[in-house]
Amino acid sequence: MSRIEAPRDEDDAAAAVASTLVDRLTAGLPAGSVLTDPDVTASYANDMASFCPAGAPAVVVLPSTVADVQHVMSTATELRVPVVPQGARTGLSGAANATDGCVVLSLTKMDRILEINPVDRVAVVEPGVVNAALSRAVNEHGLYYPPDPSSWEMCTIGGNIGTASGGLCCVKYGVTAEYVLGLDVVLADGRLMSTGRRTAKGVAGYDLTRLFVGSEGSLGIVVKAVLGLRPKPPEQLVLAAEFASAAAACDAICRIMEGGHVPSLLELMDRTTVKAVNDLAHMGLPESTEALLLAAFDTADPAADLAAVGALCEAAGATQVVPAEDAAESELLLQARRLALTALEAVKGTTMIDDVCVPRSRLGEMLAGIERVAAKYGLTIGVCAHAGDGNTHPTVCFDAADPDESRRARESFDEIMALGLELGGTITGEHGVGVLKKEWLAREIGPVGLEMQRAVKQVFDPLGILNPGKLF
Amino acid sequence: MSRIEAPRDEDDAAAAVASTLVDRLTAGLPAGSVLTDPDVTASYANDMASFCPAGAPAVVVLPSTVADVQHVMSTATELRVPVVPQGARTGLSGAANATDGCVVLSLTKMDRILEINPVDRVAVVEPGVVNAALSRAVNEHGLYYPPDPSSWEMCTIGGNIGTASGGLCCVKYGVTAEYVLGLDVVLADGRLMSTGRRTAKGVAGYDLTRLFVGSEGSLGIVVKAVLGLRPKPPEQLVLAAEFASAAAACDAICRIMEGGHVPSLLELMDRTTVKAVNDLAHMGLPESTEALLLAAFDTADPAADLAAVGALCEAAGATQVVPAEDAAESELLLQARRLALTALEAVKGTTMIDDVCVPRSRLGEMLAGIERVAAKYGLTIGVCAHAGDGNTHPTVCFDAADPDESRRARESFDEIMALGLELGGTITGEHGVGVLKKEWLAREIGPVGLEMQRAVKQVFDPLGILNPGKLF
Repeated sequence: MSRIEAPRDEDDAAAAVASTLVDRLTAGLPAGSVLTDPDVTASYANDMASFCPAGAPAVVVLPSTVADVQHVMSTATELRVPVVPQGARTGLSGAANATDGCVVLSLTKMDRILEINPVDRVAVVEPGVVNAALSRAVNEHGLYYPPDPSSWEMCTIGGNIGTASGGLCCVKYGVTAEYVLGLDVVLADGRLMSTGRRTAKGVAGYDLTRLFVGSEGSLGIVVKAVLGLRPKPPEQLVLAAEFASAAAACDAICRIMEGGHVPSLLELMDRTTVKAVNDLAHMGLPESTEALLLAAFDTADPAADLAAVGALCEAAGATQVVPAEDAAESELLLQARRLALTALEAVKGTTMIDDVCVPRSRLGEMLAGIERVAAKYGLTIGVCAHAGDGNTHPTVCFDAADPDESRRARESFDEIMALGLELGGTITGEHGVGVLKKEWLAREIGPVGLEMQRAVKQVFDPLGILNPGKLF
Repeated sequence: MSRIEAPRDEDDAAAAVASTLVDRLTAGLPAGSVLTDPDVTASYANDMASFCPAGAPAVVVLPSTVADVQHVMSTATELRVPVVPQGARTGLSGAANATDGCVVLSLTKMDRILEINPVDRVAVVEPGVVNAALSRAVNEHGLYYPPDPSSWEMCTIGGNIGTASGGLCCVKYGVTAEYVLGLDVVLADGRLMSTGRRTAKGVAGYDLTRLFVGSEGSLGIVVKAVLGLRPKPPEQLVLAAEFASAAAACDAICRIMEGGHVPSLLELMDRTTVKAVNDLAHMGLPESTEALLLAAFDTADPAADLAAVGALCEAAGATQVVPAEDAAESELLLQARRLALTALEAVKGTTMIDDVCVPRSRLGEMLAGIERVAAKYGLTIGVCAHAGDGNTHPTVCFDAADPDESRRARESFDEIMALGLELGGTITGEHGVGVLKKEWLAREIGPVGLEMQRAVKQVFDPLGILNPGKLF
């Protein structure tokens, strides 16, 4: 007589699913591509965002080919298991954070540059190519791939596409989205779809390429990208301008942009940031500086452009204007900017980096508002900004071991986003929504937009297995 | 006793629907916004594409406000009547062609420029603003709206957004899509949705803005657009180079682009076009010219750039290189290019303009292939091309009164698209799919892409009332 088994408890059921999953994945992938050691898989749990929950992956897979990715996705669809795609996990919104029991799909092994074509000015790459590796490779052909997020030495092109990354050069060259011409995408069910083109222009059908850029792995897995390139510009020359108030610096920014100048970089650091950098690196920046503006030009005659911009800074009340005379001096001036986040981290041990972008004409109001928020919550909030784009990174410095300060940090972070929306801005200029800002996405785009975005997600991911819990 | 009426015939039923439709539209719109005179409505039946079927509109509406458009769409949804949005109907793919019994929704009366902001470098406009009107208005603020389709004196921004229009300047400045930052869209059911942003950067959620650009009115009605602007560049200086073969001209194009030059215009006219222009306007172009290349620069020192490019042309075998010395001479050189289509029309009375874009490294093969097609079908096919983009406009000249020649024209047109796809190109660089190329869209994007595009359409237009029969 057969004996009726007692129902297994939930953990046993989950273990059985995981074991089937691992077996099925392993059967279709090359040896070494499936990681199951919990210590190892746990190390893939999250990206670099603070305050974002992350679950425990059931398994990490490291595909080497498009067919590998197709196998992972068709298996996940069949077993209804969530898949979280990852690049280098340098993101700042938790978009690459694992969910419990998920497959982490790390694209880092698919890191080949397939083609660089100087006549067509395109590169064809796999998603795991590191941004800096691509930049250097195209440079050798006299070409330039502009998008340069701060993490460019680590972050991958796939991750950049997923979050539509920006960087310092956007004020002149735009964001990642402008450089993605076409994609190969593995859909949730494992089918392969090509979008876009490798031509300079093309309008055949809906622009699904741009729909995938910035979709944070929630619509499909990018397995190949055709990227547009530009000719390598002349080396940029940098100018630093010190101001006695943030308002005067913002006035200078407006004059520069209104004057028709096209800087290759236009960055702002507020008093808090300047002080933090000074404390860390003893760079000799005057303590009286309330705001430091860095402008650069990579034009045929950058010295002339810097002179014009320097004059505008002086007219706006700059207390000192220091144009670099050569590349080495320029590099020195940029070091302060590059140290900003590290320096702010040193203030209290932990930072929470916001990413609010406002119309540049409202930048002054934004900075004044952030100062009010910092005072209200009794917090140190340093601001560095891609000022030419109106893209601020208000960085809340706090002690994560202090629950009250952590709470105030989170509240101030939210209040800064509310301020950005009030000023006609967006909650995220370049870091994405992920887990960190999903309540805020709904606030920004409204109920009709949200309904349509969810319906679009449903088209590409009817089972909801692609990076669930992100965006909305 | 009541008498049972005989069933009305189909025409009566259609008339009854149309009468309800007109009554409902009229009730919610200002006087004069609803046109029903069949002679008048018939004049709204089609755009400028040849060979595309067009139906008879039931009614033409000319809304003045967003609320008007919402009324039209909610009425159309309720009565299940198709709506065909139109701008100036200068399109070349039949995308604005009416279907029988449809509402033609002409946005031409919504033609206000709402804002021009030189600090934020944006313009906010209604869809009916004429491209040239916007260009001139922003020019007065020292700004530049690059997209410049040939029809720029007539075509509307809404139409440009619908077809993702290009133009002569794309080789340096990109297409319409690059300049659309945010949209207000009336959905099929009459609800209003905002997409995108007015900031320089922003990545909050899926990029629905770009999804609407180039969607040919099939996803919603654009009622407002935030457009990015650039500072006005210096006046461009033009160079003309004559070649003894199309292959040599294409070689020059490759050398120019490979050399890292960034022309503001790089146009090619083949022998047939040069001859047609000569015949029409007696411009004194040498009959021995097999290809004419026009290059322009709007840089700080255009003469230096022209000299460098002129040298590359000579190295590629140019028989003559003529750089303009000033704006007036430049204008003269551009006249030949502007006359190209008119001149080709004069050859046989009717033209069919194709719009195949190939990687620029394949342009030589494309031109050679077009010559083969022309010989095979015994037709005159002139090519002018936005050569820097690889975007060719092979223009079939034929006598529409000759059925056999018309058939050959259509077959050659298709063969040219097949050739474009073979060379890694697209069936449409800037004119769109419309009715003209819908069979070809499926061939270009494949079954999976087509399925996904249709599913996206279904999200925004579940009843299929928005510009039905276009795209796919």
